[in-house]
Amino acid sequence: MNFATYQQTLRKITDLSGAAAVLGWDTETYMPSGSHALRGQQLGTLSSMAHSLFTAESFGQGLQTLLQDPSLTPEQRQNVHITQEEYERARRIPASFVERMASLTTLAHQAWARAKTEKNFAIFAPFLTQVVAMNQEKAQLLGYEHHPYDALLHDYDRGMTTAAVEGIFATLLPALQELIAQVMAGLSVRMDFLEERAYPHDEQFQLSKMLSAAVGFDFTRGRLDEALHPFSTSFHPQDVRMTTRLDPYKLFDGIGSTIHEAGHSMHSQGLRLEHYGLPQGTYSNLSTAESQSRIWENNIGRSRAFMQWLYPLLRAVFPVQLHDVSEEECYAAMNLVRPDYIRVEADELTYHMHIALRFGIEKDLLTGALLVAEVPEYWNTQMQELLGMEVPHDALGCLQDVHWAHGSMGYFPTYSLGTLYAAQYMVAMQRELDADALIARGEFAPLLQWLREHIHTPGDLYTAGELCERVTGEPLNPGYFLRYAREKFFPKAG
Amino acid sequence: MNFATYQQTLRKITDLSGAAAVLGWDTETYMPSGSHALRGQQLGTLSSMAHSLFTAESFGQGLQTLLQDPSLTPEQRQNVHITQEEYERARRIPASFVERMASLTTLAHQAWARAKTEKNFAIFAPFLTQVVAMNQEKAQLLGYEHHPYDALLHDYDRGMTTAAVEGIFATLLPALQELIAQVMAGLSVRMDFLEERAYPHDEQFQLSKMLSAAVGFDFTRGRLDEALHPFSTSFHPQDVRMTTRLDPYKLFDGIGSTIHEAGHSMHSQGLRLEHYGLPQGTYSNLSTAESQSRIWENNIGRSRAFMQWLYPLLRAVFPVQLHDVSEEECYAAMNLVRPDYIRVEADELTYHMHIALRFGIEKDLLTGALLVAEVPEYWNTQMQELLGMEVPHDALGCLQDVHWAHGSMGYFPTYSLGTLYAAQYMVAMQRELDADALIARGEFAPLLQWLREHIHTPGDLYTAGELCERVTGEPLNPGYFLRYAREKFFPKAG
Repeated sequence: MNFATYQQTLRKITDLSGAAAVLGWDTETYMPSGSHALRGQQLGTLSSMAHSLFTAESFGQGLQTLLQDPSLTPEQRQNVHITQEEYERARRIPASFVERMASLTTLAHQAWARAKTEKNFAIFAPFLTQVVAMNQEKAQLLGYEHHPYDALLHDYDRGMTTAAVEGIFATLLPALQELIAQVMAGLSVRMDFLEERAYPHDEQFQLSKMLSAAVGFDFTRGRLDEALHPFSTSFHPQDVRMTTRLDPYKLFDGIGSTIHEAGHSMHSQGLRLEHYGLPQGTYSNLSTAESQSRIWENNIGRSRAFMQWLYPLLRAVFPVQLHDVSEEECYAAMNLVRPDYIRVEADELTYHMHIALRFGIEKDLLTGALLVAEVPEYWNTQMQELLGMEVPHDALGCLQDVHWAHGSMGYFPTYSLGTLYAAQYMVAMQRELDADALIARGEFAPLLQWLREHIHTPGDLYTAGELCERVTGEPLNPGYFLRYAREKFFPKAG
Repeated sequence: MNFATYQQTLRKITDLSGAAAVLGWDTETYMPSGSHALRGQQLGTLSSMAHSLFTAESFGQGLQTLLQDPSLTPEQRQNVHITQEEYERARRIPASFVERMASLTTLAHQAWARAKTEKNFAIFAPFLTQVVAMNQEKAQLLGYEHHPYDALLHDYDRGMTTAAVEGIFATLLPALQELIAQVMAGLSVRMDFLEERAYPHDEQFQLSKMLSAAVGFDFTRGRLDEALHPFSTSFHPQDVRMTTRLDPYKLFDGIGSTIHEAGHSMHSQGLRLEHYGLPQGTYSNLSTAESQSRIWENNIGRSRAFMQWLYPLLRAVFPVQLHDVSEEECYAAMNLVRPDYIRVEADELTYHMHIALRFGIEKDLLTGALLVAEVPEYWNTQMQELLGMEVPHDALGCLQDVHWAHGSMGYFPTYSLGTLYAAQYMVAMQRELDADALIARGEFAPLLQWLREHIHTPGDLYTAGELCERVTGEPLNPGYFLRYAREKFFPKAG
C-alpha cells in the first residue's frame, strides 16, 4: 500500500461516516416523528460497513508495509502511525460486541427516557448494570496497564490517564470550592430582566445567526438549526452544521449555547480539505475539541470585552426588555455563579464539580468499587458535599445525562479537560495578540486565525497533551484556569 | 442462500441507497451553497458500495441456488426472479463504465447549466455527443433484441418496448391534436385573477400542507419542503419527503405540483415495511410511479368534483384575491389548455407532444439517424408541427430539461405512459367507488385505500403492463385517456 491508496481507503471510510453524520443531523432536526425505526438500521449498516473497511486484514498489512516506506514525510508517517494504532484497537473489538452494544443501548435509551420521566432509577438500573458490564468487557478487550478506565478514556482523549485526571481534580476541586464560596458570599446579581421578561424566539434565532457569523462561522459552508440538545456535526470541512436551543426566559443560555457550538463548528471548518480522511483531517480527541467550544463560549464569550461589543447589539435587538439594564448588569448576569442540579445549566465554576462526580462514579463502577444500586445515594451525597445541594429526585440527579444510556463511559472528563486547555490556550494567544482590544471591537478574525493555525490545522496529529505542549510550551496546567477564574471574579484593581 | 439471507443482503443495499437518498434530499433542500464538492464524492462512495454488494459473484450464485429452493412461495420466487434479472443486468455494466458516466455527467451538468444560461447549445453539444455515445455503449452492454432504445427503456419500465411506445403515440398524437384544436377554438378562460394578483408564499405553503394532508400524505412519516425542482424521495416507507415550488403568480401550478408529489409520496408510503429491500417493497418502474402522481394531480385534482371541495378552502385562504372569482372560473383556469415551450408548464393535453418530441430525438440519436448538431433544428421544427410554436431560443427549447445532462436517456416515455395508466386506473376505480361523490366531499381515504390495495402493495412485483392487466383486466389502452380528455373538455349534456 502506498500513501495515496492509504488515503483513498480512509476517504472512503470517512465518506461513510460523513453520510452517517448527515443522517444523524437529520434525525435531530428535520426527521418526522414516526421515522425512527429504519433510520437506526440504516445508520447501523453505514457504521458496520465503515468498520469492516477499516478493520480489513489487508488494510492492516498495508499499514505495516507503509510504515516501512522510506519516502514518507515525517507528517505522513505520523498519520499512518496513528491510523495503525486505531486499527489495532478496532481489531480488538469484535463485530459481535458492537452489535450487542447497539442492541443494548437501543433498549437502555428507552428505559432511561422512561426512568427519567417517571423519576424512577429502578427502571434504568438493570440496563446500566449491563452497560457497566459491557464497558468492563471493552476495557478487557482493549487492554490497559494501570486502570480499566484508561482503556475507555483513550476513545475520547488518547494519551490521557485515569491517574492524570485524578491529579488534576485533586488540584482543581479544593481551589474551586474555596473560590465558589468566596464568590457566592459577595454575590448580588440582578436576574429579573432575564427571568421575568420574554425574549422572543425569532429575535433570539436571528441574534444567534448574527453572533455565529460575527465570530467567524462560515454560513456558506454550514448551517444553524434548532434541536432539543444543541450539537455540532461535520459531514466534511465544507459542510458543518450546528444546532442551538432557545428559551424565551434564558437569553444568555441561548447565546452561550450558540457560541459554544460555533466554537466546535469553526474547529471542524478549520480542518484542511486536503487532509480529508487522514487523522490530520479529523479530530477524534474530544478534550481539544472541547477547548475550542469553551474558549469561545467562556474565555472570549463571557469576557468583559465581549460584553462591551455585545451590549449595544443586545439593546438594538431587545430595546424594550433591556431598556433599564446596564452593560455591567448584563455582564454580571452572564457570569452568574449559582449551583444547580443540572450539569448543562452549570456556570463556569460549579461545572467541574459535576464532572468530578461523574468521573468518580464511572471509575468506581468499572472496578466494582461502586454498585449500580448505590449510584443514586452516592450521587446525592456527593452533590451535597461538592455543591451543598439536596437533590430532590433522580431525574434532577443521576438520571439527567444521556451518556450512560448511549453506552458511553469515559467521555465526561473531556468536558473539564477541554475547559482547562481553553484557559491555557487563551493565555498563549494573549502573548501574541491583544485579545481584549480585538474582542471589544468585534474583530474576531485574528483570534480565529490564531486558533486555526495552532489548534485546527494539525487535526488529530497530536494528542491533546502533545498539542498543548507544542502550542503553549508546557503540559496541561489547571493553574491557568484557576488564575483566569480568580481574575474574573476578583479582578485586581487598576 | 436462503430467503432470509437474500432479504438481509437486499436490506443492507437498500440501507445504503436510503442513506444516499437522505443526502440527495439534503442537497436539494438544506445544504449550504459551498458544500457541493465532497457531497458528490460521498454519494459516489455510497452508490459504488451498494453496486459492489449487489453484483458480488457470491450473491449471484446464491440467487441461482435460491431459485431452485422448493420451499419458496410463488410470491417469494417472483421476488428472487426479479432480483436475478436485475443482477444479470447490473453485472453487464462494469464499474469503470459507471465511473466514466459519473465523471462525464458532472461536467455535462455544468456545461448544460452554462449553455442554458447563455442560450447557446454549442456549449452543451460536445457533452451531449458523449452522453449519446455512452448510452449507445450501455445499450450494447445490456443487449437488446429489436432496438437499442429497448435496452434503455428497461431501466425505467422493464417490459416496455420502443415499438409499443411508437404504437401508443401513433394512436394518441393525432387524436390529441384534433382535440387540442377543438378546445382552443372555443376557449375563453379568465386568467387575470391568477396572473395579476399575488398569492403570498406563506399562505400557499400552508395550503400545500393542508392539501397534502387532506389527500392522505402522512406527515408523521414524511415532510414537505421547498426546492427549485419539485421531487419526492423515499428513505424507507416511514420516511418519505417531497418538495414543491411556489410562485405568487402561479397558484394552480403550485397546487398541481404539490398534489403530484403527494401522489408519488403516498405511493412510497404505501409500500409495506415487511417487504423493505425486496422488489415487492420498492418501485423501480417509473410508469406505474407516474400513474400515481398523475392520478392525484389530474384525474382527481383537476376534476370538477375536486374544485367543488377545494373552492371554499381557496376562498378562505385567499379571500381578497378570489373575492370576485367563481368556482367555475377556478375550475376553468386550473384546466387551461395553452401550448407552452416548456414541458413542465404544459397542460394535460399538450404535455404528450413534449414527450413524443423527446422520445423521437432520443431514439434517433441512439441509432445515429439524428446527429447531436441537428437536435436544435429538429426540436424547433417539431414544436412548430406538434404545437404550432416558434421556439425563440434553445433555453426554451432543447436545453430546457436536465435529463440528458444527467446521462439519462429512455426516461421521458414514462411520463406519458404513467398518465395513460392513470386514466385507465381511474376508470377501474370508478367501477368500485363513486369517486366523484367522495372527492366532492373531500373523502379521499377510500380512493387512497383502493390505490394502496391494487397499485402500491405489490411494489415492483409486476411490470407496469402486467399490473395494469391484473388491476384493470386489459393491457394499456390509450383510449381511456382520450375518453377522459374528451369528456373533460366536451362533457355530455345531462
